[in-house]
Amino acid sequence: VPVVDKELDFAQYFCTYAFLYHQKEMLSDRVRMDAYYNSVFQNKHHFKGKTVLDVGTGSGILAIWSAQAGARKVYAVEATKMSEHARVLVKANNLEGVVEVIEGSMEDVTLPEKVDVIISEWMGYFLLRESMFDSVICARDRWLKPTGIMYPSHARMWMAPIRTGLSEKKISDYEGAMDDWHHFTNETKTCYGVDMSVLTKPFSEEQKKYYLQTSSWNNLHPHQVIGTAALVKEIDCLTATVDDILKVRSNISSSITLENTRFCGFGGWFDVHFRGRKEDPAQKEVELTTAPSFDNGTHWGQQVFLVNPTVRVTEGDNINFSFLMNRSKENHRLMEVELGCEVRQCSGNALPAFNKKYYIE
Amino acid sequence: VPVVDKELDFAQYFCTYAFLYHQKEMLSDRVRMDAYYNSVFQNKHHFKGKTVLDVGTGSGILAIWSAQAGARKVYAVEATKMSEHARVLVKANNLEGVVEVIEGSMEDVTLPEKVDVIISEWMGYFLLRESMFDSVICARDRWLKPTGIMYPSHARMWMAPIRTGLSEKKISDYEGAMDDWHHFTNETKTCYGVDMSVLTKPFSEEQKKYYLQTSSWNNLHPHQVIGTAALVKEIDCLTATVDDILKVRSNISSSITLENTRFCGFGGWFDVHFRGRKEDPAQKEVELTTAPSFDNGTHWGQQVFLVNPTVRVTEGDNINFSFLMNRSKENHRLMEVELGCEVRQCSGNALPAFNKKYYIE
Ligand SMILES: Nc1ncnc2c1ncn2[C@@H]1O[C@H](CSCC[C@H](N)C(=O)O)[C@@H](O)[C@H]1O
Ligand SMILES: Nc1ncnc2c1ncn2[C@@H]1O[C@H](CSCC[C@H](N)C(=O)O)[C@@H](O)[C@H]1O
Repeated sequence: VPVVDKELDFAQYFCTYAFLYHQKEMLSDRVRMDAYYNSVFQNKHHFKGKTVLDVGTGSGILAIWSAQAGARKVYAVEATKMSEHARVLVKANNLEGVVEVIEGSMEDVTLPEKVDVIISEWMGYFLLRESMFDSVICARDRWLKPTGIMYPSHARMWMAPIRTGLSEKKISDYEGAMDDWHHFTNETKTCYGVDMSVLTKPFSEEQKKYYLQTSSWNNLHPHQVIGTAALVKEIDCLTATVDDILKVRSNISSSITLENTRFCGFGGWFDVHFRGRKEDPAQKEVELTTAPSFDNGTHWGQQVFLVNPTVRVTEGDNINFSFLMNRSKENHRLMEVELGCEVRQCSGNALPAFNKKYYIE
Repeated sequence: VPVVDKELDFAQYFCTYAFLYHQKEMLSDRVRMDAYYNSVFQNKHHFKGKTVLDVGTGSGILAIWSAQAGARKVYAVEATKMSEHARVLVKANNLEGVVEVIEGSMEDVTLPEKVDVIISEWMGYFLLRESMFDSVICARDRWLKPTGIMYPSHARMWMAPIRTGLSEKKISDYEGAMDDWHHFTNETKTCYGVDMSVLTKPFSEEQKKYYLQTSSWNNLHPHQVIGTAALVKEIDCLTATVDDILKVRSNISSSITLENTRFCGFGGWFDVHFRGRKEDPAQKEVELTTAPSFDNGTHWGQQVFLVNPTVRVTEGDNINFSFLMNRSKENHRLMEVELGCEVRQCSGNALPAFNKKYYIE
């Protein structure tokens, strides 16, 4: 794990979480809220009389629910000044005897005791963006009792082939930017005597990266998914190490389930489960999924990785692909993805394979 | 001057300049380009056979022009990787014998000689945002010959009372955000058993700061200016020190020049001049102004500071105001402005004075 400039990390990553506006966006995500709410209140036996640690408490919501479900003591750790709002909220809800809000990085905080439950909402786009699960692992290894339970207990990453008009849009945006550039270099030559055409290639690469190689946030409709979803990664939150998630590597495949359609790229999403622990399972298992959905969209949406050119496919065709996700060298909270992909038509033909790099920014 | 975390400053400030896309935006600003172009080519005597330093060369444009105008040697210093593109551009324009591109912070760079001219495009929104003039001062004090010339040589900040529909827009945006919040707290109480109304005040303050206390970029039309422009600050680039620009303090006034109109706030802008040096003046003085203009808008636009409520004023009324600009404690490249303001009607009446703080983000 590379050394992180803390001040930089704070300015780049934590800053947004210090705004109530941003916390409110998460608190307004009904799918997210319902899942955590149900996971706590339908499994009160995990909380009654227990000690709980909320990693990254933000507004304090999960800590408050834990207390309302009967926890004896809740430690609510938050790195940003949001902690002050959380403290006020705890008090206004008459829980200051139970919830202790602690301002600090989870990595630096010392608790007076080990806890029975760690609850945390640490998931970023496509699960691992933000790399916040590192902090949960760190908390778990230091503060969870050997018999303790993780909320959520499991997490999975999924990918499926999709069709989308986004390809055309992005390509036309890119082409527009290049037209503009050519106009610009002509003007600069004519009016200001400097020939900039030598920068056309680097400019085009910059724009390609921005428009075509950066995955986009999208709220996909289920009918845009044209093949089976492939499991990319499975995480047991009780046992996973940072090493397990530093790189995500997978060779997977998907069968096309739609007749005569267009393969435009992949959609990536995640789900998490609240199952308790084998020896101490949930009474009611809860799932939080961010899969494409008609009416249960989340603020996470899906990440879309466009392929270009698009490929005509049909039911029974297979897409074999290799997936490799690394953290970006410049910012460990952002990701780089390498996708290798081959379409095997049900006729037996294999279309030319391709390899592409993407940035999750 | 506070200590700056260099890595943080690089990530927050310099990063954008590493994109050709951003350089292109500046290079497409005709008013900016014409002013610098004319200042160089209509004053070739300042460049012929001379040594020049371009502070923050970006794409290299000013360095290239200086060389084309006859400079013997041009040092082109650029902090970001844009330096690599500048080097390529210099070569493609056959000037690699004259222009030497140096990648590094101006503050850290050592030149082999002192220079006759320092040219730089260092101006940010409302002149001083970005605080880049600090780097020009540092370059001047270390590398300009005692007889040397600054391009530009002078800079001024202006403010004038304006009318604008932006007030209503911002107020209604703010009110919309608050309506949303009330809906949100109701839902959270009903569906999730947590009363968030205690956070209404801090949320409202956060939103007020964002919508009403942060100055906005705007391209004002001249007819939106309702009074005389007041000179806020004058800078002689040859002699100004960092101390002179750390704080900008001014007591100024403006007379309303329109009949029966609405005073909605202030527009702030700047101009710079290329006059050479008293002992070695420009043959042709050039001005670059970012004042409200019908057809010569710039990418700088104007900064708008809204007052609220707006005030009915008429020709002959006077606005007396005190202006104080400081750098933000969190980021020395951003600004905080305190405006005190009093309207004296020509009838002799003085309307209640007010004081307001703004952020230039
Ligand atoms: N290492 C760390 N230590 C403390 N807080 C952290 C952290 N990493 C992230 N956070 C905080 O974790 C929060 C994640 S967002 C989730 C907020 C809240 N638990 C909710 O469910 O609504 C942010 O407020 C962020 O500032
Ligand atoms: N202290 C410093 N040292 C070196 N470069 C700097 C600097 N401060 C700002 N810069 C650079 O100065 C440039 C300002 S923008 C102007 C670019 C170019 N001279 C033009 O006129 O088009 C940016 O590219 C920025 O990266």
